Amino acid sequence: MDAADAELARLNDNPLYRALGIRLDAIGGGDARATLAPTPAACWPMPEQPHGGVLFTLIDTTAAWGASSLVGPGEGCVTVDCSVQYVAPARHAPFACVARTVARSGRSLFVRAEVLDARGALVALGQGTFRSVPTGA
Amino acid sequence: MDAADAELARLNDNPLYRALGIRLDAIGGGDARATLAPTPAACWPMPEQPHGGVLFTLIDTTAAWGASSLVGPGEGCVTVDCSVQYVAPARHAPFACVARTVARSGRSLFVRAEVLDARGALVALGQGTFRSVPTGA
Amino acid sequence: MDAADAELARLNDNPLYRALGIRLDAIGGGDARATLAPTPAACWPMPEQPHGGVLFTLIDTTAAWGASSLVGPGEGCVTVDCSVQYVAPARHAPFACVARTVARSGRSLFVRAEVLDARGALVALGQGTFRSVPTGA
Amino acid sequence: MDAADAELARLNDNPLYRALGIRLDAIGGGDARATLAPTPAACWPMPEQPHGGVLFTLIDTTAAWGASSLVGPGEGCVTVDCSVQYVAPARHAPFACVARTVARSGRSLFVRAEVLDARGALVALGQGTFRSVPTGA
Repeated sequence: MDAADAELARLNDNPLYRALGIRLDAIGGGDARATLAPTPAACWPMPEQPHGGVLFTLIDTTAAWGASSLVGPGEGCVTVDCSVQYVAPARHAPFACVARTVARSGRSLFVRAEVLDARGALVALGQGTFRSVPTGA
Repeated sequence: MDAADAELARLNDNPLYRALGIRLDAIGGGDARATLAPTPAACWPMPEQPHGGVLFTLIDTTAAWGASSLVGPGEGCVTVDCSVQYVAPARHAPFACVARTVARSGRSLFVRAEVLDARGALVALGQGTFRSVPTGA
Repeated sequence: MDAADAELARLNDNPLYRALGIRLDAIGGGDARATLAPTPAACWPMPEQPHGGVLFTLIDTTAAWGASSLVGPGEGCVTVDCSVQYVAPARHAPFACVARTVARSGRSLFVRAEVLDARGALVALGQGTFRSVPTGA
Repeated sequence: MDAADAELARLNDNPLYRALGIRLDAIGGGDARATLAPTPAACWPMPEQPHGGVLFTLIDTTAAWGASSLVGPGEGCVTVDCSVQYVAPARHAPFACVARTVARSGRSLFVRAEVLDARGALVALGQGTFRSVPTGA
C-alpha cells in the first residue's frame, strides 16, 4: 500500500507518537519517512536533546512502516532485531528519519534507516531485520 | 558509585521515565536493574504491549546507568551503539531489565542486558557499546 | 542431536576450519563450544593475533551449531544476522568460544556467544539471529 | 592516504586474504572497495558459497581500510563492533564489497558496507564502529 494522507493521519493519531513527538510523513514502496519534533518528555537527561531510546523508537517505527508497505493486506511487520549507532549528539531539532527496505527473503525484510538533524547532519544509523506476520485484523 | 535510595529516587524523577513507565531499582559495580510498568502511551500499536522502542529505551538506559557506575565523578556514559533482539512478544507486564558491564577498554564499556516479563520469560536482549564522557557538571 | 565424538570429528574435518584453526568441542541442547588455535594465515595484520573476521567466524559457526542442535533431522540453521563486539585485543591463544541458544520463536533462534583467551579474559561477544531451514539432505 | 596500486598490491599480499580469496581494489576518502573470489577453503559447508564468516571478514576488512584512509600517518583503525545481516544466499561469485565511512566523532568512525554478488544482487550488509589507534610503526 501507499499511504494516503488520511491513512497517515490515522496512523499518527496514537499516544506513543504524541508522547515522544513522532510524525510519519510518507510510507510506500518499502520506504518510509518520519519527523521527530521531540516533546519535553522525550528530552532527558539532556535538555532539548532526545534520548537515544527516542531516536531508536523513531528509527524502529519508521523502518517497520517502510517494511509493512511491502506486505499484503492483513499483514504487518514486527522487529526481530535492530542495531543502532549514535554518530553525533542530537542537538538540532526537528529530526528527519528515512528508512529503506533493502532486501527481502521470504517473510524476512531487511531495512536501513538514517536520522538527520535540522541542519542535515547525520545523527544516528539503524539496520534491522523485520518479519511479516498476520495482523489478525 | 553505588546508588542509594535517595539517589535512585532523584534519577527516577524525570519526564521520560514517567511517560513510559520506567523505574531504576539498583545501580552499582557496573550493573543496573530497572522495571518497566508500561504506561498506556508506551503500549502501541498493541494494547498492553510496550512498543519495541520502549523496550529498547529500557535496555539502553539501564545499560548506560550500569556502565556509569564504573566511571569517575564528573563523568557519565553515552551510548555509541546498541543491538537489540526481540525474542518473544512482550505480553506480561511488569518487565524487569538487568544490565551488566562485561568488559572495559579505556573509555569504552561493553554492556549486555536482558528483559524478562512478569513470568520470568525472556522478551528482549541487548548488547551495547558505551563511552565515558565528562558530564560538564 | 547431541554430537558424539565421531560426529564432531566429521564436522571438524573441513577446509575452512583447517585454514583458520577452528575445532568444535561439544554440541548439544542448544549450546556449543569450540576452540580457535589460530593458524599463521588467520593472524593478520597483527602476528599471533587472529583477525577480527576469524573471531567472528568462530562465534558464528559455534552459535550456528548450538542452534542446530535444537532443530529436527533434515534441518540446519543459517545466520540471519549477528552483532559482534571486540572488547580486548586477542593476544593469548588458544581461544575458547561458548555459544548458548537463549530463546526460540518459530524457526528463529537467538544465540549469544563469548570468546575467552587462554587466560580466561573476555575477548569478543556475539549476539545473533538464526533460522532453521531444510538442509536438503 | 589514497592507496596507489603499489600500496594495494602490498596490502593484498598477505596470508589471510590468500586463504580466503580477498583482494582490495581501492581505498581513499573514507571509502574502500574489495573483491571476494572465494577459495575452496572459504566455501563450507555449502560448496561454492562462502561461509558467513568469510563474508563478514570481507566486510570488516574493507570497512577498516575505508576508515583508515581518514586517519593520520602512524595510525590505523580497529573494529570496536560490527553488525552484519545476511539477506540472500551467496551463490554467484565473485562478490564485490563497498564500504563507506558515514560519520566520524573523535577517534570513532562509523562505516557501512554492502556485499553484492556477480549479478549485482545484495547478499550482505554491515554497519560497524571503528577506532583510530596508533599503529606503533
